[in-house]
Parts: sequence; C-alpha cells; structure tokens
Amino acid sequence: MIIDCHGHYTTAPSPLQDFRAAQLAALQDGSAPPAAPAIGDDAIVESIEANQLRILRERGADLMIFSPRASAMAHHVDDPAVARAWARASNDLVHRVAGLFPTHFAAACQLPQTPSGGIDDAVDELRRCVSELGFVGCLLNPDPSGGFWTGPPLTDPHWYPLYEALVALDVPAMVHVSASRNPNFHDLGAHYLNADTSIFMQLVLGDLFQDFPTLRLVIPHGGGAVPYHWGRYHGLATRLGRPPITDLLRNVFFDTAVYHQPGIDLLHQVIPADNILFASEMLGAVRGNNPETGESWDHTKLYIDRTGLDPEDLRKVYEDNARRVFPRLSR
Amino acid sequence: MIIDCHGHYTTAPSPLQDFRAAQLAALQDGSAPPAAPAIGDDAIVESIEANQLRILRERGADLMIFSPRASAMAHHVDDPAVARAWARASNDLVHRVAGLFPTHFAAACQLPQTPSGGIDDAVDELRRCVSELGFVGCLLNPDPSGGFWTGPPLTDPHWYPLYEALVALDVPAMVHVSASRNPNFHDLGAHYLNADTSIFMQLVLGDLFQDFPTLRLVIPHGGGAVPYHWGRYHGLATRLGRPPITDLLRNVFFDTAVYHQPGIDLLHQVIPADNILFASEMLGAVRGNNPETGESWDHTKLYIDRTGLDPEDLRKVYEDNARRVFPRLSR
Repeated sequence: MIIDCHGHYTTAPSPLQDFRAAQLAALQDGSAPPAAPAIGDDAIVESIEANQLRILRERGADLMIFSPRASAMAHHVDDPAVARAWARASNDLVHRVAGLFPTHFAAACQLPQTPSGGIDDAVDELRRCVSELGFVGCLLNPDPSGGFWTGPPLTDPHWYPLYEALVALDVPAMVHVSASRNPNFHDLGAHYLNADTSIFMQLVLGDLFQDFPTLRLVIPHGGGAVPYHWGRYHGLATRLGRPPITDLLRNVFFDTAVYHQPGIDLLHQVIPADNILFASEMLGAVRGNNPETGESWDHTKLYIDRTGLDPEDLRKVYEDNARRVFPRLSR
Repeated sequence: MIIDCHGHYTTAPSPLQDFRAAQLAALQDGSAPPAAPAIGDDAIVESIEANQLRILRERGADLMIFSPRASAMAHHVDDPAVARAWARASNDLVHRVAGLFPTHFAAACQLPQTPSGGIDDAVDELRRCVSELGFVGCLLNPDPSGGFWTGPPLTDPHWYPLYEALVALDVPAMVHVSASRNPNFHDLGAHYLNADTSIFMQLVLGDLFQDFPTLRLVIPHGGGAVPYHWGRYHGLATRLGRPPITDLLRNVFFDTAVYHQPGIDLLHQVIPADNILFASEMLGAVRGNNPETGESWDHTKLYIDRTGLDPEDLRKVYEDNARRVFPRLSR
C-alpha cells in the first residue's frame, strides 16, 4: 500500500472560493458574514475523480492525506471569527472528500490561526475535526503573519496548548505555512522552504520534545534546506552545546516533496528511512512535466523507486511510517 | 592554485569590537562618535597567522577572498552615519590584512546599508574600496532589517545604482545577510540559508540580468535550499512563464560552503562546474570536527576532492571561476 502524506484540495469547487471572497468582503464592509458554501456531492466527486484520484490511480498510490489548500489558509487575515469560519468551511469540505472516497482520502485540517490571536481556536477546531469528523492530522502554520514572522518560534509556550491537544488526540502536525504577503518571499519558491528550514533550527535550539516526548511533527518539502545542509546542522548543534540533531528524529519526519532525482537521492542518503514519509504534494506547487524526461515533476514515486532503497525501507517510506506518524489512519 | 572565495575576519582584534560598542553607545546617548580603532600590525598579523592563514596552509589553499564578519555588519542599526563609519572601519581592517598578506588575502567590502536609507552610501563605499583600496568584491545584504525583510527584493530598482557601480567597476557581489534579530530565524541555521533561497527565487521572477547582463552575483552557503530543490525551481519557472533557470547561470554562481559529503555531491551533480566557486567560510558558522570522521566540518576541499570531478572541472571550481567572477583578483 502506498500512502501519500501530503495533498491539498487545490481543485476545490468554486463555491468555496466564492465563500471566501464573500467572507472577506463582509469583513471589509462590516456586513453579516456569508453562510457556509453549498456544494453538491457531484461537484466534489468530479473535482476529485478528474484530478487527485485519477493521478493517484495512474501512479499506483492508494491513499492520500488530504488537507485544505495551504496557500489559501491565509492566516494573515487577523480576525478570529473569519479564521474560524474559513477553517470550518475548508475542513468540512475535505471531510466530505474523505467521506465520499474513504479508501482513498483521509483528512487533515486547517487551523483557525491569526497573527495576533491566541491558540485556543486552533485547539477547538483540531478537537472538532479529529474527535467528531475522524481527521488524522493537521497543518500547523508557524508564521500566521504570512511572511513577516511576527510571532514566536514553535518552541515558545504560546503553542503548548496545541501540542497538548495533538498529544492527547494522538495526531501529528505537518508544519506548513500559507501564502506569503512579503514581496521578498515567493510562496512556493521561498516562503515554504524557508519555513521548513527555520522551524527545524528552532527545534535544534529548543527543548520542545523534552516537554512533549510523543509529539510528532512532519516537515514538508523534503525538509526545506535541512537535509542538503545536514552537516551544517550537525556542527551547529555541537558548537551551540545542543543535543545531537539525530535526537530530533524521534519526533521529526520529512516528506518526499522534492522534485528531482538528485534531491530525493540526497534525502534518502542523509535521513534514516524511518523518518521519511512518501509525499507528492501533487497538483500543488509544481505541475507539469520535466521536458527532459517527459515525467511529471511531482511524480516523486519514480524518483524514490530509483534510489535503490531495499524493499523493507521502501515499505517504511510508502506506508509504515505514515501509519506510525498518523496512527488514526489505521482506525 | 586554490582560491577560497568566502572568508570573513571572524578573528579581528578586539579593538574593532570595542569601537563598535563605543559607536553604538554614542548613538544611544547622543555623544560624539568614537575615533577609528587603533590596531597595530602585530595584532593583525597574529590574528591571521594563528587562524585563517594557518588553516589555509594546512589545507593546501592559497588565497582567500576576505571580508568583514558578516554577522557583525548589523545593518539593522538604522543610522546612515553609523553604518558608514562601521563599514569604513571594518573595510579598512580587511584592507590591512590584504596589505600585510598580499599573496594570501584579497579584500571584499561590507556596504553601509540601513533598513530605511537609500543605496548611495553603499555605492560610495564600494567605489572607495575598489578604486582606492583594490578590493575585488563586496557583500550585499538583501535584508538590512535583520530578519524582518521590510525592504524591496533585489530585483527592485532601489538597488540599481549599486548594480551600475558593480558593473562599472567589474566586481561581483556576494549576497550575504547579517545577524538576525528575528527570534524565528537563527542566523547561521536559518536566516543565512533562507536569504540564499529567497533571492534566487527573486531572480527567477525578475528581469535583473536583462538590465545588467554582465552583473555577477555569488550565492553563498551552496545556494541555500536551491540545488536540493533544483527540480522545483525548474518546474516553477516553467509554470510561471519565466525563462529556464539555466539562463540565470550566466550571472549567478554558488559557493561550496556546504558541510558534508552528500551536500557537496548534490551541488556538483546539479550545478554546472562553471558556476561553482570553492569556499570554506572557515572559522565561520561551523567550527569543530565531525566526530565520525575527525575532519573539520568546514574543510570543504576534502568533500570536493572526493566528488570525482575531472581535473578540468576541479580547476574551474578551485581557481578559474573565481578569477572570472572576481577579475580584479588577477590585476
């Protein structure tokens, strides 16, 4: 079985985005917020069958952990009620995808974060999604400001109530930013990778997993710059008097959303097979084909199959690690 | 001959830092700024012979392009006069190193940037250093705010007067941030790498080299996350309707400050040999030895020698590219 741990509903029917536009318009002019979007099963089925499910099947994968579109989470809109309603609408929609295609999609939720708000709303929505709707994980945005990084690092007690809930519910968080409003950072070509890199170093410097020994975090996009600079992190940790970075591998996992063979090779060379989760983020950042090979950039299974991993390690990357990190998958 | 394109005067005699402290104290209390630091030749010779020169010799390298300590540039101090005096003091000191050890050190300058100031002071200091003092390059900070990224991208016309001067003087810029004041970004483990990643994507999105076809930029630390995600950038450029990223390789170069074998292997696998410049950044971010090998983390020559590059490519990486990118080295 092949589990893709990182997919977003980038093809959601247009009423979802219409709802969002109406919501932002209402925020601007002070009118009543819109009702939740009305989307029929047919529209959902069509949007999935023609896209993610078709490609899952074509590529021989079985199950995708499916969350709302990350770039659309837009946590920089600094209004808690708007954030709550937007997260709820987005999560309810991926819940319906998982309900319509229970063998192919398991849901992970967007959290209602804001730059200046607290973390309680995120905890409540996480609890609702996991306990009531059967979600298996969530996306945690380490920079709700959208590229200005005005909040505290992930090791700050600010986030602790969320970690307590994650541990209690036994679900992991994928640490994933949303759109960048900073013109210095392109979302897909800078902000996402910078976030992955930055939070790993926050974890090197902090003692988060002493306080939460069973907390599990997935760093997407192959860990940003981290595996490529693994020696740098080794050396920095030593120089700064921190524990070996390999200690973090009890709690930190990397996905395989890296879109060329040398990158995937390096990832598997540097990071133990126990800590790598298969992901394509397909129909995400990089759609289209490599003109040199004719293969889709995000068809990461091709790269992984060529790494020469032995069958046992391949099984870890494709299935076992996902089941261990997302244990609610197996319920 | 082996040229290390990336070294900072991290071992400068203490009067330099005393001057800086006095300068900041004077800024705070409004008193007269301190006089330039008085440092004897002996102190400079000792600080270099015991450190960078000793290690250059031990490792079989010949010449280092030597700039002030990057983390100490501290452009976030938003006072143009302070920035000018600090850059001048720092540059005059590396000039003296190059004067005392002319066969082993060539100087690259710190620019007097500030978060809210213009670029004219940087142009003036660049001209002084190159035309009067024989400097061969400079460090360009793409984020003078120190981790808040409040300024414009490097492709913005804000920076154009500096590019005009770089082209006219025929010197390159190494794009290198300074200390981070943002608690989300550790200097060495996040901010530096994020900057390298971010500015590459800025270059993908902009048309800077149409306007400055002979401008040369060196992205340090192995290009941040870029080579590891080379497929992502290829695909993003296509999806965004931008020219192939290989077009950027007429103007963009990566150094080898990557501190483990797999990283260096990937760099050389992905980036053409014409675009890689040897660097150790030794006595920089990662001092100390890899306990598994006993080798210094920043002894990057060892990794490069093991990549299996043919002698012609090795010569490019160790010498020829540096001479082409920094043509004033050969004057």
